[in-house]
Amino acid sequence: MVEQLRSTTLLRIEGARATRRGDHLAREEPLEIRVRGRSIAVTMRTPGHDDELACGFLLSEGLISKRTDVAEIAPCASGENAAFGNILNVFLAPSVPLDLERLTRHTFASSSCGLCGKASIESVHQHFAPLKESPRVSVEVIRLLPEKLIPGQSTFAKTGGLHAAGLFDLTGNLLAVREDVGRHNAVDKVLGWAFLRSLLPLKEHILLVSGRASFEIMQKALAGGIPVVAAVSAPSSLAVEFARESNQLLIGFLRGEKFNVYSRLDLFTNR
Amino acid sequence: MVEQLRSTTLLRIEGARATRRGDHLAREEPLEIRVRGRSIAVTMRTPGHDDELACGFLLSEGLISKRTDVAEIAPCASGENAAFGNILNVFLAPSVPLDLERLTRHTFASSSCGLCGKASIESVHQHFAPLKESPRVSVEVIRLLPEKLIPGQSTFAKTGGLHAAGLFDLTGNLLAVREDVGRHNAVDKVLGWAFLRSLLPLKEHILLVSGRASFEIMQKALAGGIPVVAAVSAPSSLAVEFARESNQLLIGFLRGEKFNVYSRLDLFTNR
Repeated sequence: MVEQLRSTTLLRIEGARATRRGDHLAREEPLEIRVRGRSIAVTMRTPGHDDELACGFLLSEGLISKRTDVAEIAPCASGENAAFGNILNVFLAPSVPLDLERLTRHTFASSSCGLCGKASIESVHQHFAPLKESPRVSVEVIRLLPEKLIPGQSTFAKTGGLHAAGLFDLTGNLLAVREDVGRHNAVDKVLGWAFLRSLLPLKEHILLVSGRASFEIMQKALAGGIPVVAAVSAPSSLAVEFARESNQLLIGFLRGEKFNVYSRLDLFTNR
Repeated sequence: MVEQLRSTTLLRIEGARATRRGDHLAREEPLEIRVRGRSIAVTMRTPGHDDELACGFLLSEGLISKRTDVAEIAPCASGENAAFGNILNVFLAPSVPLDLERLTRHTFASSSCGLCGKASIESVHQHFAPLKESPRVSVEVIRLLPEKLIPGQSTFAKTGGLHAAGLFDLTGNLLAVREDVGRHNAVDKVLGWAFLRSLLPLKEHILLVSGRASFEIMQKALAGGIPVVAAVSAPSSLAVEFARESNQLLIGFLRGEKFNVYSRLDLFTNR
């Protein structure tokens, strides 16, 4: 297990008192993802589960879609880079085309009708079709999700400084939980976990995120085929629009006995 | 003033009750930044203060450094794009070189000694030197910052879904506050606000962020010359390392009467 913590010394101020003491920080380090010798992305992440992060990222970007697309994943093993483990080579099967134009920032900008939220959604849908059907879920299952995530948030407990993402089945069983300084990285890791086990599309699954739901989170969920996304905090306007256009059920402000349903209100059962 | 809210209808679940009601969402829409006819970035942001966002972004990326580098900023005025206002042209003075290699993802990857946190800091320092001197600040000034930010967080109050960044002077006067769905965007807007007023470097200023402090936030603060960064939530390991190497004072978990000081402990006065 890669260390996700760093120790530090700090000055704690409480009222008029100042005390020197030790504490833990969530680790943040760069990861470079290379495909066919080319650098595809450099992202700041919490080390650990890097193979999952790389697969989830490449899946979300539309560069890979099934387990057999990836032949091998290996950290750069030569020179100084080997010591840090921060460069990861993803070896694709020879038949997989490498279409770098698919990378997000090009995708958003390529719409013919101008740049707006609707065009951004449309350009994602060109690669990831809206869901055809979505399963019903019960109030009780949703309500219990956040507390099931807590035992998996070991680094958050020590640092208060991480985002978490959890993948559940429709009866509320926790399948995987990942933590990261980057919200999108935590989601990529959970997606990559499922990708590497050939579980995609995640037709009967729920994604829970510890913070807010943005366009990017909804896009990643759709890339994994996930029909239900629940967020502990607020969704953005474009996250809600994306969910509605993609036939995803989006839940926000999931806290205690209460939550909001922003899309597919018809999918909700009070059982 | 650009509208930062969107209305929506949702289903509110409280215990066994489900009620349909109206609510507000924080707007999220794409912004494309173009320089000399080239698309430099597409970012998801909350509309409003886009000129500041563009300047703060270009400053952080090292593409511009002083007010006179920017001749004009104007939304794309032709075709469908004009209607949305989501494409912004930044016209640079003819003498400004456009070095696209400076863009972050290339910068991180170009270190000769391998990819690690230290190399990432070093590559930022090649363009933004560590601060030579930092001012002292008082406990009392720091403690009062978060409550001064609240009146400026009008959209957060209505949606619970936005990050905020505030710029203060050393006596704790609030100079500017900006909100955005993206944490880095809120900081870019505040930096851009100061840039457009020729206030850089912000040698005697404090940056307050409503969430966590990451490497990226510290990098942006250094790009603006800001010696003191305070975060309401946790800093990452690399944020702390960056602050120490850059001679910045970094404060975290700033809540009520308490906070943590992670770097430049010597700069702190209990007055």
